[in-house]
Amino acid sequence: MPQLGLLPRRTWAALLSQLLRPPHSACIPAVGCHSQGTRDLSPEQMVVREKILDMVVSCFKRHGAKGLDTPAFELKETLTEKYEENSGLIYDLKDQGGELLSLRYDLTVPFARYLAMNKLKKMKRYQVGKVWRRESPTIVQGRYREFCQCDFDIAGQFDPMIPDAECLKIICEILSGLQLGDFLIKVNDRRIVDGMFAVCGVPESKFRAICASMDKLDKMSWRDVRHEMVAKKGLSPEVADRIGEYAQCHGGISLIEQMFQDPRLSQNKQALEGLGDLKLLFEYLTLFGIAEKICFDLSLARGLDYYTGVIYEAVLLQTPTQIGEEPLNVGSVAAGGRYDELVAMFDPKGHKVPCVGLSIGVERIFSIVEQRMKTSFKKVRTTETQVFVATPQKNFLRERLKLIAELWNAGIKAEMLYKNDPKLLTQLHYCENTGIPLVVIIGEQEQKEGVIKLRSVASRKEVAIKRENLVAEIQKRLSES
Amino acid sequence: MPQLGLLPRRTWAALLSQLLRPPHSACIPAVGCHSQGTRDLSPEQMVVREKILDMVVSCFKRHGAKGLDTPAFELKETLTEKYEENSGLIYDLKDQGGELLSLRYDLTVPFARYLAMNKLKKMKRYQVGKVWRRESPTIVQGRYREFCQCDFDIAGQFDPMIPDAECLKIICEILSGLQLGDFLIKVNDRRIVDGMFAVCGVPESKFRAICASMDKLDKMSWRDVRHEMVAKKGLSPEVADRIGEYAQCHGGISLIEQMFQDPRLSQNKQALEGLGDLKLLFEYLTLFGIAEKICFDLSLARGLDYYTGVIYEAVLLQTPTQIGEEPLNVGSVAAGGRYDELVAMFDPKGHKVPCVGLSIGVERIFSIVEQRMKTSFKKVRTTETQVFVATPQKNFLRERLKLIAELWNAGIKAEMLYKNDPKLLTQLHYCENTGIPLVVIIGEQEQKEGVIKLRSVASRKEVAIKRENLVAEIQKRLSES
Repeated sequence: MPQLGLLPRRTWAALLSQLLRPPHSACIPAVGCHSQGTRDLSPEQMVVREKILDMVVSCFKRHGAKGLDTPAFELKETLTEKYEENSGLIYDLKDQGGELLSLRYDLTVPFARYLAMNKLKKMKRYQVGKVWRRESPTIVQGRYREFCQCDFDIAGQFDPMIPDAECLKIICEILSGLQLGDFLIKVNDRRIVDGMFAVCGVPESKFRAICASMDKLDKMSWRDVRHEMVAKKGLSPEVADRIGEYAQCHGGISLIEQMFQDPRLSQNKQALEGLGDLKLLFEYLTLFGIAEKICFDLSLARGLDYYTGVIYEAVLLQTPTQIGEEPLNVGSVAAGGRYDELVAMFDPKGHKVPCVGLSIGVERIFSIVEQRMKTSFKKVRTTETQVFVATPQKNFLRERLKLIAELWNAGIKAEMLYKNDPKLLTQLHYCENTGIPLVVIIGEQEQKEGVIKLRSVASRKEVAIKRENLVAEIQKRLSES
Repeated sequence: MPQLGLLPRRTWAALLSQLLRPPHSACIPAVGCHSQGTRDLSPEQMVVREKILDMVVSCFKRHGAKGLDTPAFELKETLTEKYEENSGLIYDLKDQGGELLSLRYDLTVPFARYLAMNKLKKMKRYQVGKVWRRESPTIVQGRYREFCQCDFDIAGQFDPMIPDAECLKIICEILSGLQLGDFLIKVNDRRIVDGMFAVCGVPESKFRAICASMDKLDKMSWRDVRHEMVAKKGLSPEVADRIGEYAQCHGGISLIEQMFQDPRLSQNKQALEGLGDLKLLFEYLTLFGIAEKICFDLSLARGLDYYTGVIYEAVLLQTPTQIGEEPLNVGSVAAGGRYDELVAMFDPKGHKVPCVGLSIGVERIFSIVEQRMKTSFKKVRTTETQVFVATPQKNFLRERLKLIAELWNAGIKAEMLYKNDPKLLTQLHYCENTGIPLVVIIGEQEQKEGVIKLRSVASRKEVAIKRENLVAEIQKRLSES
């Protein structure tokens, strides 16, 4: 692999993406297939997503957030110099005359651009939307080139650590609410990371590059990360080893106290500021009753360039495994941090608007829940239809049409077969297959008597109901179930 | 203008887009602005959208549709040859190695691609999502380069006109439900359009081009459309005049009967098929109780290439005007039709899957509702917060944090100020400004007595409640309101 590593980034990426080409793109060229690393979401998947997103958004709203939407593409210049090493993953639009555009890479940079453009000094907002990254599509790990992000951010100058603590509370509420099993939120502070680099002897010019290497610790061993730091980023082995010692440290409030006493770290002003804030943060987290879910972890670095203070990342401690369920490596399921300088980059006068926020890794959560449903063999209903309009006789299309319009007009979710003369069995099978609970049956006999038959699909019981009472009776049954 | 019209399309488009550059893009380069023809959606706009989209989607679900999502970009070849004259409006992605990609132009082509790719022979699906078109941004008319579409489609081989009638029923339910004022759905059939062209003497090679001209009749006068047909598309004036006679015809079922008797049209097999289907359609629409909303209009052509049968377009008859409200030209608010050949274009063996569907012009509907709210001076709440946690004293941050966590854990939507010692007046003003109905107040006195004050913002009445009963009392109040 080292030889491959020496190839120019784009060649290497192209090669890798060939190797990892997902199976579904092996379709006949020029006829119906979608682009590599993207996918359609089937009705079954949409049902799962809708539930999870509803839950996430309702938590954001519970914390007083406003909704916001920004365009899928931004001016290319808006995105440049925000993502350091990852900027090669940005999708650019073709120059078709006019401005140079790129697809958004996250929802944070557009939010910062929005605040600056509208001269907003404070805002608590959430945003749910797709972002695009030209990653090598290692589909196995649930990484796609198009994926959904759910962000919550608090912008504004406030007293320290109050909004930061709320962000961690939100992550806890969402992960607990979704019942994904036990989880842990690793917390650190960029100032502690930088202070640690400084006291270990990392030259300042290498801070961001070494930070990016350290960020890989959740996917690579320390041995490999150390190798990258030394061989690729030119760090001396002694400096790397000093970092390695710190990177092993993780714990609770006592570790913060310990670091305050650390002979080297306590000499660094930045690190002390970070430690002071973390101490306050832990105090608030204790009041929120979530301190036991939080772990101060000196190895946490976060890849993105724009963080300036507290950073955090939530990981599932164990994928809930049931019999027959394949283990699914999902890694981080939520992350975020403080970025106090980003908005100023978009303001002509450089006015600062401090921000802190979080992003829920919903794609990974979708994968887990989908996997769980697959192994539970529970059939998911992909429609919400409550009533089916059927007939046992020929030439009853017109009656069915009149009847179903009546149901629709009353707000009842109803379906019928688009056939002139369907067989009754076909109609009843359709209800069983799609999980429709009630059937209204109209035929000659019923028409003569001025009634309709109402059938429960589950019990197969039928009762005759006066035509004019039908809607009321259905509504009664539906409200009871 | 004729000289400009002779410029190559792209030059002309670039020039026009310069002229029409919307005011908000006049921001300082390289600092916070978004790309031309796109826009951010503010929290106020998001509230309106959420309500409208909920209403539209719940109608789609009432008719038994399943959800689907497709990627924002497709392989470029998926989109080529689907949009005839408009293909210049497709956004391409830059070639960064790998496949050639384009942003989707509508939701219909991706749906057809999905059906073919998954070999699905029938499906009733809805999709809500953004699409992108490089139009000259004439923002005044509510046209953006990024906009939301809401589509409902029925794929499958069924008995004639049953799904088609349901599509028109859905449009009626949505437009009535949104209370946008009176509306009308124009209906025609591509086979009648083509038959009419044939009997008028249009050469078959010019059918689609003349169809595209006729589609402009809602924006241009017949005089101008005729000029385009003759001067630009090379039609003889007599043929154009014959088309003009038909294009004036609109009416109900009686017009269908009249056209059956038309000496020229009745000689055309295609036209007769179309007329036969329209007759059946009107019968079903009568059973659905919506026939009076439908108008057979021989001038309706629909620009898109893929329609093969019934086509329709809903227009608001009159923008609801209140005093002070600016008139808003919104044109068509829903449209669709039958496209029986599109899926086959993506199937390696060319298997057909007949489809019919509709698209709700939600952007235009958003504009109308937003405009209406502006003139009504009604303040829109952009958050849903139910309770605010306040204190009249200093050093009560910790008590507030404990209290608010309790509320969040009980599912109550709650906020507090992110300050150590905010003034009581500031806190109460915040509630009044953002419309929060209830305030919980904790101070020294309350703490001593083991109570909390619960204040109604509207009535300014305060009552003391035992600390342990607070959540229950709040939930009681909220369920009553």
